[in-house]
Amino acid sequence: MSRYSPVTEEIAAELKKIVGEKYVICNDAEKLEPYSHDETPGKEWGRMPEAVVRPSSADEIAKIAKLANERMVPITPRGAGSGLSGGAVPLHGGIVISLDRMNKVLELDKDNMMITVEAGVIANDINEHIREHGLFYAGYPMSMETCYIGGNVAENAGGGKAVKYGVTARYVLGLEVVTPAGEIVQMGGKLLKDVTGYNMVQLMVGSEGTLGIITKVILKLIPLPKYQVDLLCLFKSSEEAIAAVPRIMTSSGITPTSIEYMDRESVQESCKYLNENISYQDAGAMLLVTVDGSEKELVEKDYETVGTLCEKLGAFEVYVADNPTTSERIWKIRRNIPEAFSVFSKRQCGEDIVVPPASIPLIVAEFKKLAAKYSVRIPSYGHAGDGNLHSRISCGTDWSDEKWKSTLPKILEELYSLVNKLGGKISGEHGIGHKRKKYMRTVVSEEYIGMLKAVKRALDPNYILNPGKIFDL
Amino acid sequence: MSRYSPVTEEIAAELKKIVGEKYVICNDAEKLEPYSHDETPGKEWGRMPEAVVRPSSADEIAKIAKLANERMVPITPRGAGSGLSGGAVPLHGGIVISLDRMNKVLELDKDNMMITVEAGVIANDINEHIREHGLFYAGYPMSMETCYIGGNVAENAGGGKAVKYGVTARYVLGLEVVTPAGEIVQMGGKLLKDVTGYNMVQLMVGSEGTLGIITKVILKLIPLPKYQVDLLCLFKSSEEAIAAVPRIMTSSGITPTSIEYMDRESVQESCKYLNENISYQDAGAMLLVTVDGSEKELVEKDYETVGTLCEKLGAFEVYVADNPTTSERIWKIRRNIPEAFSVFSKRQCGEDIVVPPASIPLIVAEFKKLAAKYSVRIPSYGHAGDGNLHSRISCGTDWSDEKWKSTLPKILEELYSLVNKLGGKISGEHGIGHKRKKYMRTVVSEEYIGMLKAVKRALDPNYILNPGKIFDL
Repeated sequence: MSRYSPVTEEIAAELKKIVGEKYVICNDAEKLEPYSHDETPGKEWGRMPEAVVRPSSADEIAKIAKLANERMVPITPRGAGSGLSGGAVPLHGGIVISLDRMNKVLELDKDNMMITVEAGVIANDINEHIREHGLFYAGYPMSMETCYIGGNVAENAGGGKAVKYGVTARYVLGLEVVTPAGEIVQMGGKLLKDVTGYNMVQLMVGSEGTLGIITKVILKLIPLPKYQVDLLCLFKSSEEAIAAVPRIMTSSGITPTSIEYMDRESVQESCKYLNENISYQDAGAMLLVTVDGSEKELVEKDYETVGTLCEKLGAFEVYVADNPTTSERIWKIRRNIPEAFSVFSKRQCGEDIVVPPASIPLIVAEFKKLAAKYSVRIPSYGHAGDGNLHSRISCGTDWSDEKWKSTLPKILEELYSLVNKLGGKISGEHGIGHKRKKYMRTVVSEEYIGMLKAVKRALDPNYILNPGKIFDL
Repeated sequence: MSRYSPVTEEIAAELKKIVGEKYVICNDAEKLEPYSHDETPGKEWGRMPEAVVRPSSADEIAKIAKLANERMVPITPRGAGSGLSGGAVPLHGGIVISLDRMNKVLELDKDNMMITVEAGVIANDINEHIREHGLFYAGYPMSMETCYIGGNVAENAGGGKAVKYGVTARYVLGLEVVTPAGEIVQMGGKLLKDVTGYNMVQLMVGSEGTLGIITKVILKLIPLPKYQVDLLCLFKSSEEAIAAVPRIMTSSGITPTSIEYMDRESVQESCKYLNENISYQDAGAMLLVTVDGSEKELVEKDYETVGTLCEKLGAFEVYVADNPTTSERIWKIRRNIPEAFSVFSKRQCGEDIVVPPASIPLIVAEFKKLAAKYSVRIPSYGHAGDGNLHSRISCGTDWSDEKWKSTLPKILEELYSLVNKLGGKISGEHGIGHKRKKYMRTVVSEEYIGMLKAVKRALDPNYILNPGKIFDL
């Protein structure tokens, strides 16, 4: 028997009182369906909510949480639904709390170089808002045109600029969080350093909406880098391309903004999807290396250093994109790889492993062996500069559903064991969600999971907030 | 009645079995005394331990913790004892666990640009160890010549280079931690990003030794900046000097490595203490601004930009220190201010407030008013570039102990309220310890403290690990 109660007519009526009738969806499968899944490939990861509410304030969310906590109804916060591990999926039914109406930029504080936004602001809109002021928010998830900042914080999104600028966590200075008991708590602030109590802000970052509902975010901004150059370095083989990555990191003396790896298959799928025809898509693999900065000469010097190094390391061609149009054309191909794979292949599994950066060539080699062993495809792409690689495991059209379902777990077990042997982990930026939770033990100890569970129990004793994610209690 | 048990002869014998007889101190007040306090000014913050143990491994610490947890004896981990909030003081007696024997650099991993060290390694030794490899650890606490990296992590030390490089937290990628129950847990790893479960690493960072005993640390390193220039900018008044700080941050287009503020009194005390006679010590206040980088021309351009801006903002003199000897001479004065105050003044209270960086001039002005109101001195210095200011409240020699003890809490209440009004917090890098715990409520909510307590209870249910710090349970 479930520990949870259903969303009764009476509870639905209460919800309508809190947020207004038109912002509650229930008893309407068609309208509920979009809230039943995120972008994780595979229908098996979805689950229908019983109700969706679209509050406009932290106060409303606090009331919803209080109600849900009293009635033992699970609640699941949801941003744009662009997640890749099922974080926003209401695994035990109950109420989905959509943050889409909380989309206001509350304050740009130029004197402190900080911005305060509601959780439902689209990541890319932050930079649109601040560019004219010469400021820059360094988060750059590949879904930036749709994803919400609240989701970025909840998942600790990485993205294309993390090699130089770090992941979302580095920029989150303050949060407003609604607890499962319905309290509104302010954490951190407009402060560049703060040791007043435990670092609850960073505990919330990456907690996948299981410890609190993020309603407001204070982000640190930096001076906008005036110049950016992208290098597209083509290699004959994936081995050569990936081997160049740690070399760029350690021997160029430069920390590039991005080092993205794309194997041939990934580029081809994306080009096909975008109806883009780039002449160099037949290279064995390519690296997309970005350098940026505020001094034109230095950026030029840096890209020449990196370009020359790549040629030494086997690149047969280095294209220089030093204008926004060409840059965007290349980055669009990179950003659309996951979407392209989703469209062109029914059965697939998107992975997000992370290893020590110097081990990136080893793991790519292991993936090739694994693909051959199981007769599947494991094309890879991603943020190679920080040791984070995305791979899409997919099978031929001749495979039965049963074969796929019985084989995939074996492949994943082996893949994660290889990652573990290299000192890696099963997710660098997409999160555990419910997609990866059963594999946690391949990379962390029972005692570690025990600590996670203890923290969850401490902050959500009734276990009503996004239950079933990361681990089973 | 205390909830804790004393260190009996039998427990002492067990401890000797675990670490060896010569590494246990008990029944010897003279030898125990150095472990009864840290560098917090004021004898009232000290408390004698019943026993001190000096283990050589995480295994030994795990055994000690297990024993203490079973017998309900409090344990307090201790680094170099250079803390400034009483973090290493055994407030409820019991056992102090000194990390001084765990002082090995375990591995320098040049390919990943990471270093693995035991918790008892002196912060400065890390850079001594890696400089020849062209690598750099960006932590730079003022006590770097003595403090241990384990303590830096436990307190989330800031320091002189945080404006550009961030605080300790940014460089901690992995930890080995002994739990109060005596389990050894690995967290994080040689990974630049990792969302495999909650961010327990960052929960441990800054937890002041209350959630786990840090035994091993994996740190991220960066390429060693080849060039560094320090500017010593002299202003006629403290108002002018401090007003320049946010202007440098927002309008120079540069992120300096350091922006340190020192008022006249701070500089004079330190010079007196060091027997140093710098001709410019009579300026009203000064800023020490550092820029660094790997390109000589760029560093030169940057320091000229900053220097010219400071002159525009009222600096009547800008000294350029572009060689290590002169640099070290200036920084030594900065680093020795706290020690100088301790030597020359009996009754004093060292503060560590942090405010949004743009509010730094406001808080300095408020401190002046407060000093006048209570007829005390509140000289200020510190990491103004990140909004973090150290102030030493002290009174005249004519004050009685009673007057000091009854007046100080009033001053602190007022001071912290001012900080709170500006959106600040009561500690930027020194920690709460037991020195500041009763003032937590001036800056954070009851609900927030409730969350901290819940986390503490979850990870240390018997409350044996460094009890009485940050809050009372």
